[in-house]
Amino acid sequence: MTTALLQALRSAVGDAQVLTHEDPATDLSAWETDWRGRAHGRALAVVRPGNTDEVAAVVKACAAAGASLVPQGGNTGLVVGSVPDSSGTQVLLSLTRMNAVRALDTANLTLTVEAGCVLQAVQQTAEKAGLLFPLSLAAEGSCTIGGNLATNAGGTQVLRYGNARDLCLGLEVVTAQGDIWHGLSGLRKDNTGYDLRNLLIGSEGTLGIITAATLKLHPQPLARLTAWAAVPSLDAAVALLGLAQRQLGAGLTGFEVMGQFALSLVDKHFSALRVPLWRESPYCVLLENSDSESEEHARAQFERLLEAALEQGLASDAVVAESLAQARGLWHIRESIPLAQAQEGLNIKHDISIPVSRIPAFCVETDALLAREIPGVRLVNFGHLGDGNLHYNVQAPEHANAADFLRTQESEVNRLVFEAVSRYGGSISAEHGVGSLKVDTLPHHKDPVALALMRSIKTALDPQNTMNPGRVLTR
Amino acid sequence: MTTALLQALRSAVGDAQVLTHEDPATDLSAWETDWRGRAHGRALAVVRPGNTDEVAAVVKACAAAGASLVPQGGNTGLVVGSVPDSSGTQVLLSLTRMNAVRALDTANLTLTVEAGCVLQAVQQTAEKAGLLFPLSLAAEGSCTIGGNLATNAGGTQVLRYGNARDLCLGLEVVTAQGDIWHGLSGLRKDNTGYDLRNLLIGSEGTLGIITAATLKLHPQPLARLTAWAAVPSLDAAVALLGLAQRQLGAGLTGFEVMGQFALSLVDKHFSALRVPLWRESPYCVLLENSDSESEEHARAQFERLLEAALEQGLASDAVVAESLAQARGLWHIRESIPLAQAQEGLNIKHDISIPVSRIPAFCVETDALLAREIPGVRLVNFGHLGDGNLHYNVQAPEHANAADFLRTQESEVNRLVFEAVSRYGGSISAEHGVGSLKVDTLPHHKDPVALALMRSIKTALDPQNTMNPGRVLTR
Repeated sequence: MTTALLQALRSAVGDAQVLTHEDPATDLSAWETDWRGRAHGRALAVVRPGNTDEVAAVVKACAAAGASLVPQGGNTGLVVGSVPDSSGTQVLLSLTRMNAVRALDTANLTLTVEAGCVLQAVQQTAEKAGLLFPLSLAAEGSCTIGGNLATNAGGTQVLRYGNARDLCLGLEVVTAQGDIWHGLSGLRKDNTGYDLRNLLIGSEGTLGIITAATLKLHPQPLARLTAWAAVPSLDAAVALLGLAQRQLGAGLTGFEVMGQFALSLVDKHFSALRVPLWRESPYCVLLENSDSESEEHARAQFERLLEAALEQGLASDAVVAESLAQARGLWHIRESIPLAQAQEGLNIKHDISIPVSRIPAFCVETDALLAREIPGVRLVNFGHLGDGNLHYNVQAPEHANAADFLRTQESEVNRLVFEAVSRYGGSISAEHGVGSLKVDTLPHHKDPVALALMRSIKTALDPQNTMNPGRVLTR
Repeated sequence: MTTALLQALRSAVGDAQVLTHEDPATDLSAWETDWRGRAHGRALAVVRPGNTDEVAAVVKACAAAGASLVPQGGNTGLVVGSVPDSSGTQVLLSLTRMNAVRALDTANLTLTVEAGCVLQAVQQTAEKAGLLFPLSLAAEGSCTIGGNLATNAGGTQVLRYGNARDLCLGLEVVTAQGDIWHGLSGLRKDNTGYDLRNLLIGSEGTLGIITAATLKLHPQPLARLTAWAAVPSLDAAVALLGLAQRQLGAGLTGFEVMGQFALSLVDKHFSALRVPLWRESPYCVLLENSDSESEEHARAQFERLLEAALEQGLASDAVVAESLAQARGLWHIRESIPLAQAQEGLNIKHDISIPVSRIPAFCVETDALLAREIPGVRLVNFGHLGDGNLHYNVQAPEHANAADFLRTQESEVNRLVFEAVSRYGGSISAEHGVGSLKVDTLPHHKDPVALALMRSIKTALDPQNTMNPGRVLTR
C-alpha cells in the first residue's frame, strides 16, 4: 500500500518533489519538528507540489490510500499544528513552492497570491504598488500567507485592520476529495450562500487545503507615529484606549500594553534598548497613530491625546517618537519581551483574550490567585490590549529551577489561568489556534453545542478524517 | 399529526402566541406575504416565542413532527426568504417578541441584543451611549437585527464599517436539533475552532435560528460631511474613489454612484428634491467624510480632495453640503431613486457586485448588449461603488407596457445581465441574498465545488431539511 501511495505521489508531483527517509542522506527534520521544538514527528514523505492541480492529485492519491495529510507553510505556528505525528504514515504537504503572485489589482485594492508566498513578500509586493497589506507579526520573514490564513493569524495591526480573516476576500481550496473550489473572488460583497471562505480560514488544514488567496489591500498611510506612555493601572490603560479610539478614530492602529516585570526583563537582558518610563509605573502602553494627511497632523493629534490623558490622570508620563528610528526602537522593545523572557528562563505561555472591559479585574484576580497558589511566581503580562488579547505568561520564581517548575506546575498553572479566562467570558486561544497543543484542553472551555457543530462539519467535509487529523478536534 | 404538533407548539409558547387559520378572525397575511408582494404563502401556524428556551422548544416540536420552520424578523427581505410556502404545512417562527437589549458594554464597545430588536432601536441604543452602530439601510425602521444577520445585510456604510457580518462578534443560536449554542462572545480575537458565527450569518435561517447577537460598536464621529460631484465617466468615478481612499483614509464612509437616467427620474417624479449637477454629466457621486476631529477639519479635507479631483479631471463640478439639512437632502435624493423608479413603472431589479476596477468595462459592455437586444431599454444604474455593488436595474422602453415588458423580457434580461456578471468575476447577489427568488439561478453562476460544500454542510447540520427549506439551496 505504502509503495503504491509513494508511486502515486511521485507521479503527481515528480520524483524530485517527494522526499522520504528511504534515502538516508535526506534530512526531513525541518519539516518534522515544530517551531518551538516541542514535537518531533516522522513523515512517510514530504511532498512539494508546484501548482494547484498537483495539490489536488496529491490529495486524491492520499484519499485513495486512506493516508492522512498534514499541510505546512513556513512551519512557524506555536500550537503544533503543521508537523506530522510520529507514526511515519502521514504525508507532509509543503506548500512553499507555490509562491507566485498571480494578480495585482490596484483599483480594486486586491492582491492574489499563492499559499506559499512568505508574508513579508506579500507586504513588499503591496508596498511597491504604493499600497498596504497590514498583516504583521514576528514570524513575517518566514511564515506563509497560506499558514496565516489557515490559522487566522493576528499580530500588531488587528485593532485597525482585523486579523487574517478580515484581510481576505477569496480563496482557492483543494477539498478533502481532491476537488478544487475556485473561489478567488475580489468582491467586497457576495451574498450567494454560506460563508465557506471564513469556514476554511482558521480551520488549520482540517477541512481543506488553501492553495491561493485574494487579499484585501489598503492605502498606505502618509505618516505613522508611535508614542509610549506610563499608566498608573490597567483600568487607566483601558480608559486611555477608549479616549484614543474617540480622538483618533481609525487612525489608532496599535495599542499594546506591557507590565512592569515584562519591561524589567527587557531592561535586564537588553539594556541597550533603553526602555523608557518603566520604573515608575505598573504598566506602559505603546500607541500608534496612522494618518492619511501628514506627519504634522498626526503629531498634533497625538499631542492633544496625550495632554488629555495626562490631565485626566490616565497617564503619568508620555513620549512621542521624534523619528522613524525612535519609533522602531519603541516597537523593538515591545517585540523583545518574548526574547527577554526566554533569556530569563523557561516559562509557561498563554495567548488569551478577554472582553477589554473585564481585563483589569481578570488580571487583579488571576495575579492574586497565582501568587497565592505558587508563592514567588512572576508574571510576564503584555499584549494587544486594543484587541483584548494578552500574552499572560508565567515565569518560575526567582532562583527556582525553571525546568522543574514547568514539569511540576504547567498543567496546574494552565488550569488556573484557563478557568479564570472562562469565568471572564474569554478565549483560551486568541490568535495562535488549537493545533495539537490545545486540542485536549479545548472541550473543557468551549460550548458543547459549538463543538458538536464543529464535529458535524468536520465529518461532512472530511469523512475519512485524513485532513490534518487530531488538530482542532479529536475524533 | 398536525393536531399533535399544534398542541406541542402551544405548550411551548402558550396558546396566545400560536396563531392559525382555524380562527377565521385571525389574519396572518402580514406574515405570509413578502415585502414586495411577490409571494403569498400559507402557514400552518404563526408561532411567536418570547425567549430562547421557547424557540428551542418550538424547534424540537417541529423536528419531532418533521415539520419545517420558516424564521422571520421584520419580513423586509427582497428575495422571498422569510415567508412560508403555499403548502399550509410550514410553521412561521416570528422572532419579533424577542426584542430585549441584554447588555451594553461601553468599554468593550459591544451591545448584546435579541434577534427581534428593530435595527433603528439598536442604532438608537448605541447613540444614547455616545456610540455608533453603523449598519444602516432603507428598511431600518422595521427590519430586525436577527434578519440583518441571517441575510448579512449591507447598506450605505459598508465601505468603512463592513456589512452585518463585520459588525457582529458573537451569536446565540438554536440548532436544527433544538439545542442552544451559547456563543454570545464579546471577543475580537478567538481562534478556538471553526468560524461558526460567520457560517450562521448569511445562511438565511437554513442552518439554525439566530436568537441573539453581540454587536460591535464604534465611536461616534464628531463630524459627518456630505459632498456631491458630477463625474465625466465611470472610469473617473473609480479613479475618484481611489483618490478619496488615499486622502481620507477610513474617514471615507460613503461613496455612492448614480447614473444620469436614475437621477432624471428623481428630478421628474420628485422635482422638489432639486437634484444638483445631473444634467451635465453621465454620472454623479455622493461622498461622505466622517471625522473624529472636527467639522472644520472634515471640511478642509473635503475641499482639498475635491480641488484635486477637479484639477485631475475626475470631476467636472462639485458641492459640499453646508448644513446637516443639506446633507440629508443629498442622501435623500440617492435614497429616492428606487421610489422614482417605481413611479416610472415596473422594472427588473439586479443587486450585483463586480470588482471595482472592472465596473466601467462591465457597464459599457452590458449597457450596449441590452440596448442591442432590447431596443429602447432604459437603465437605472446606481449603487455603492465603493463596495463594487450596483443596483443595475432595467426599465421598460418609454411608452411600453411595463407589465408586458416584465412578463416577456424578465428572464432574458436576467440571463444577459447575470452572464455578464459572471464573465466579469462578479456576484449575482451582492447584499440581498438568495432566498427563494434566486435559488434556481444560483447553480448556473456559482462554483460547483462551492455548491457541493454548501450542500454537505446543510445536510450535516439540518439532516431533516426542516430549517427554511428551499432557501439558498434546493435539495
